[in-house]
Amino acid sequence: MNRLIDEIKKIVGPAGVLLGEEVTARSDFWPPMGGCQARAIIRPASTQEVSDVLKLCHAAGQSVVTHGGLTGLVGGAKASPEDIVLSLERMHRIETVDTINRTVTVDAGVPLQRVHEAAEEAGLLFPLDLGARGSCTIGGNIATNAGGNSVIRYGMIREQLLGVEAVLADGTVISSLNRVIKNNTGYDLKQLFIGSEGTLGVVTRAVLRLRPLPRSCNTALVAIEQFDLLGRFLVEMDTALGGTLSAFEVMWNDFYHLIVAEVGGHGQPLKPSHQFYVLLESTGGHEQGDRDRFQDALHEAMEAELIVDAVIAQSKQQRADLWGIRDDIEGLTMAFFPPLVFDISLDIQQMDDYVEEVREQLSQRWPASRMVVFGHLGDGNIHLVLTIGSHEPGEVHAVETIIYEALGRRHGVISAEHGIGLDKREYLQHSRSAEEIKLMKILKQALDPIGILNPGKIFTHVDSSS
Amino acid sequence: MNRLIDEIKKIVGPAGVLLGEEVTARSDFWPPMGGCQARAIIRPASTQEVSDVLKLCHAAGQSVVTHGGLTGLVGGAKASPEDIVLSLERMHRIETVDTINRTVTVDAGVPLQRVHEAAEEAGLLFPLDLGARGSCTIGGNIATNAGGNSVIRYGMIREQLLGVEAVLADGTVISSLNRVIKNNTGYDLKQLFIGSEGTLGVVTRAVLRLRPLPRSCNTALVAIEQFDLLGRFLVEMDTALGGTLSAFEVMWNDFYHLIVAEVGGHGQPLKPSHQFYVLLESTGGHEQGDRDRFQDALHEAMEAELIVDAVIAQSKQQRADLWGIRDDIEGLTMAFFPPLVFDISLDIQQMDDYVEEVREQLSQRWPASRMVVFGHLGDGNIHLVLTIGSHEPGEVHAVETIIYEALGRRHGVISAEHGIGLDKREYLQHSRSAEEIKLMKILKQALDPIGILNPGKIFTHVDSSS
Repeated sequence: MNRLIDEIKKIVGPAGVLLGEEVTARSDFWPPMGGCQARAIIRPASTQEVSDVLKLCHAAGQSVVTHGGLTGLVGGAKASPEDIVLSLERMHRIETVDTINRTVTVDAGVPLQRVHEAAEEAGLLFPLDLGARGSCTIGGNIATNAGGNSVIRYGMIREQLLGVEAVLADGTVISSLNRVIKNNTGYDLKQLFIGSEGTLGVVTRAVLRLRPLPRSCNTALVAIEQFDLLGRFLVEMDTALGGTLSAFEVMWNDFYHLIVAEVGGHGQPLKPSHQFYVLLESTGGHEQGDRDRFQDALHEAMEAELIVDAVIAQSKQQRADLWGIRDDIEGLTMAFFPPLVFDISLDIQQMDDYVEEVREQLSQRWPASRMVVFGHLGDGNIHLVLTIGSHEPGEVHAVETIIYEALGRRHGVISAEHGIGLDKREYLQHSRSAEEIKLMKILKQALDPIGILNPGKIFTHVDSSS
Repeated sequence: MNRLIDEIKKIVGPAGVLLGEEVTARSDFWPPMGGCQARAIIRPASTQEVSDVLKLCHAAGQSVVTHGGLTGLVGGAKASPEDIVLSLERMHRIETVDTINRTVTVDAGVPLQRVHEAAEEAGLLFPLDLGARGSCTIGGNIATNAGGNSVIRYGMIREQLLGVEAVLADGTVISSLNRVIKNNTGYDLKQLFIGSEGTLGVVTRAVLRLRPLPRSCNTALVAIEQFDLLGRFLVEMDTALGGTLSAFEVMWNDFYHLIVAEVGGHGQPLKPSHQFYVLLESTGGHEQGDRDRFQDALHEAMEAELIVDAVIAQSKQQRADLWGIRDDIEGLTMAFFPPLVFDISLDIQQMDDYVEEVREQLSQRWPASRMVVFGHLGDGNIHLVLTIGSHEPGEVHAVETIIYEALGRRHGVISAEHGIGLDKREYLQHSRSAEEIKLMKILKQALDPIGILNPGKIFTHVDSSS
């Protein structure tokens, strides 16, 4: 055992290996509270070092859990005592920003926010954005197919990724650093590494697509009284804004009321008595024209009686204040401590019925339970945050079963954003068929036959007889 | 042999099996001139029938070539005398158009144009568009990851596809008909079937994402005198138009001059003496505002001396006339008969140098050769069309070698749009590394171990020892 670590130390140097308390002082789940159980944390400084380390691990049958920024919420980075952790924290170069082809090439360990800054300095936008931007890394974003706030316009990171370099379980380097938008030369191998949660390879570098930097940003908060009008308002606004709708965040009354009337500190830009609230945003290239278009579109929606009230941000501060309501996860967490958090997708037209069913089942079993609903409705993705006054595993399991079974019956998605990891493994069959799961295992078997990469994540078991 | 066909007939019925002259009367390449060599053409009417047919073929080791609209240009659908053709022509239902979630669910055999029409009737847009829209099918578009004219804004079909149903070589039905934008529940299996040219499975149904139907469309043709200004103009326009640039088609002087001054019939909206021409288009939701923004953006570009002349379409007819120049492939084909056509991608900043090198090498060897250049420069994708006055295989091979070797040295892409098929197999290594090709073969081996699906396409050989 220690011989393997010694061999690895020859590759990555003494600074590249953490042992003992340097390991346990770290976390492999969120929020960070220490307690990583891994045998060692290995910190390679290059793709070649990742390859050499994996070659050794592969030969030794040593399991490897790759770490990015550790901001996932499903236990996807959790290591057991027999695992080695591979942390890409020393691989954090931004290699090149290409302002004509509009790409940036980075190491996998670069935090998302540094990519934003590098793009903006070059007059461009990297549109993937999410709350953990300061900590999460591009490698982790790729491994979990991260989404965030602007997916309705720009898509998940899958749509922002032109090329990757990744290392397979046996150390083979797949350098697929494509830099162009159109490339139909055989299989698009990078897809294997997107959203597969470190089970098929270790992403070491990436080529990301950049977009025009917006010159205008218009933001409004509106009130809507009927669920059915939400979907119509979405389509109307996206059409009137010519496809430039870059956020469409819906808050059910329970959420908005909790944040502005109970948590407080936000003012009340709209009264908390409406049924639904939508925070919407559109970005563009023409300050005055875009503002006119935005106001015209809202005016039309008011005339058509889709919305009953609206406030448009008149300054950057007002915009931040409106987003502050949507993003007050801290206030929500405190109010519901300890909260149970769900991140799901389903047919927009079934959401209302679904939420009501879940609410009813929860209050039957836990009369004092409380739930709020909000999320990226424009993407079919909502968050349920709730408290039943307990965090006892059996109770949590009962809540999960209610939520995922009701979802499965509606062909919904048990993980819109964070992936499956450890925490959602047993519910995977609510969203994926037996044939799909079998095919996933065929892929896992083909790329990692010994099963050393992030073992036990996504699936409960991979059959190695073949 | 005939027993297998008899068994298949029991599944698909007599109308589902074509034999003899009904086969040879058809083509499996473009342009269609008859001569399909397959043993039989099988026309299943449902996913279940596809599955049952493939189960039989798999058990018999019978190779299968899937046919869509047969508009590809690389021999990807070519069948040999021992192959059976699976044509999805009887699977052409548009199942549902969902106007709130903005999706359309279709059979794989539906022609692209019918999807356009169904979307438009519902007030929505399916943005994938290409010249073969009347014949090509959604299944073929998926199998070849089709692109076309609006890729700069909307991406290839890969970005338009939410879910697929596909049948594996052994008849397993993978029903992965996801309908939401965000779904991170394990591996994204649909990626396997996109752009893999029928070698990993047969796509039978698809869920496509729809977009807002534009209410405005602004089109201009501009002239530019220096190559370096093309990239700057692209970025400036896309920024000023707030990311709504939906086409950026560049024509080198040789192309524009040939079409307007030699082929003729198009008028001369701009004099044919400039170095480069750009046909650009922007779509949006606000007629007057979008027009002002478009004119302002062009005015700024003129002030900044990026462009030297411009004409803006003032009517639908004028728009069609401008596109008529770019799209006069018939005029081009006649002038260069028989033309050699190349469809490549590379770094925009290396295009000028690349084109010059190719031109020089061609004219050294074939002094009477002629080449024109045009394409989707905004996507890094250009077309080279040329004539050397011969179509003799050895000569054609020499041209291909010049073009792909010069591209390989610049890390370019030998197939931006049409795939590899048969025709580009031997050049694949100019765009993909040995490790990438090996990994492709591992995937092929895992999904189709006997190798019955479109054998010999993309790769020259799959090692079946494992």
